[in-house]
Amino acid sequence: MDDGTDGGVTDVAGLTRLVREFSRERDWEQFHDPKSLVLALVGEVGELAELFQWLPADEAAARFAAPDRRQRAGEELADVLVYLLRLADVLDVDLAAAAQAKIAAARTRFPADAVRGTAPEKR
Amino acid sequence: MDDGTDGGVTDVAGLTRLVREFSRERDWEQFHDPKSLVLALVGEVGELAELFQWLPADEAAARFAAPDRRQRAGEELADVLVYLLRLADVLDVDLAAAAQAKIAAARTRFPADAVRGTAPEKR
Amino acid sequence: MDDGTDGGVTDVAGLTRLVREFSRERDWEQFHDPKSLVLALVGEVGELAELFQWLPADEAAARFAAPDRRQRAGEELADVLVYLLRLADVLDVDLAAAAQAKIAAARTRFPADAVRGTAPEKR
Amino acid sequence: MDDGTDGGVTDVAGLTRLVREFSRERDWEQFHDPKSLVLALVGEVGELAELFQWLPADEAAARFAAPDRRQRAGEELADVLVYLLRLADVLDVDLAAAAQAKIAAARTRFPADAVRGTAPEKR
Repeated sequence: MDDGTDGGVTDVAGLTRLVREFSRERDWEQFHDPKSLVLALVGEVGELAELFQWLPADEAAARFAAPDRRQRAGEELADVLVYLLRLADVLDVDLAAAAQAKIAAARTRFPADAVRGTAPEKR
Repeated sequence: MDDGTDGGVTDVAGLTRLVREFSRERDWEQFHDPKSLVLALVGEVGELAELFQWLPADEAAARFAAPDRRQRAGEELADVLVYLLRLADVLDVDLAAAAQAKIAAARTRFPADAVRGTAPEKR
Repeated sequence: MDDGTDGGVTDVAGLTRLVREFSRERDWEQFHDPKSLVLALVGEVGELAELFQWLPADEAAARFAAPDRRQRAGEELADVLVYLLRLADVLDVDLAAAAQAKIAAARTRFPADAVRGTAPEKR
Repeated sequence: MDDGTDGGVTDVAGLTRLVREFSRERDWEQFHDPKSLVLALVGEVGELAELFQWLPADEAAARFAAPDRRQRAGEELADVLVYLLRLADVLDVDLAAAAQAKIAAARTRFPADAVRGTAPEKR
């Protein structure tokens, strides 16, 4: 099987399979109910938030341009993705198709000419 | 450009481009500093958590097997992915490569024969 | 019993009792296992994050100084507190005492003269 | 001032003052804009989630009844409370009053006789 080290897997379905195989080989699928996976995802999102929490907002990206910081951010982003892929897998959701559908819906909901330069405000 | 509706984009880089184009067309890149994107990601993770919060853990997956619920879950999972892809993009992180590297590192850290059937406990 | 409208309950234990009574009167304690409560907490934290996500960091507080926005923020902060109190209650944790102990420990861990003006960086 | 170790501070306003003094003594108020504080809160919620993520939902509370685990849970709950109090403080929100108002509103929104034993479902 793909050992996850060849760098050749770039599609969502392939990455999903890598995570599934990793889980199956360890008999960890038994722990992967949706609620547990969302909690695991939250744990990783928390680590991601900690990387940026005290940085000036307008300097955060630049501070993470250094190779070691970028590497660190990549690891946290990857942890979030891994649990997101696993959750989509146990829910039998085609995540790539769902993302495209969401983006297409957003194009309709937020016409470029109507919202250009204005952030949608939550109230 | 790819209008995001053809269902043909399945790789992480392609989805990342769709989100980048969506943002650029609306001049929303100005709002996409890392801290703001993590907060947006947290907002979507919160909506995902709400879907499952009161369900019996062992029934959650089955309850979401119905087409309408699966569709709903897919939309929330997609929202999380969209912001995760956008954050990786502004941080210039190759998310697919980072995910593969993380999985490869986890294979070493958690040898299947040593951890089979046992969840790593956080203390 | 205290109907929660007299405005007189200001201590953590009293607020915890109000939430417990609210839950008990609805026979909702059965849903309040720790994992479900953390997910509910995450849902509320997500709503809190959405309030601020696209605001310039240095204008966020001022933007919420208007009575209606402050009211809105107060409601989201309250939702987070309610689930936090409920979770501490089901875990039999004295949250006020735990918070004081944490602050006391932080005073030792971060001597004012050593860290003044410098944010502890997560790496 | 109250050094936070006497165990005597049990009200929300008093705990809020302890956190404010701790921040002021370290000149850390400059870092405490709402977005940064929400990210810090998210980081702590993530640590809380990690405590429970892989536990069977119906055993989580019992597993944390042991003194050391309860102590650990208390520390994570306290971290969340500390940032929540700090955020309410910078937003000039009376958190105890806001919580009581929220509970009172919930009593009206969810009449006990109408919802008894049924969890409100998010769709």
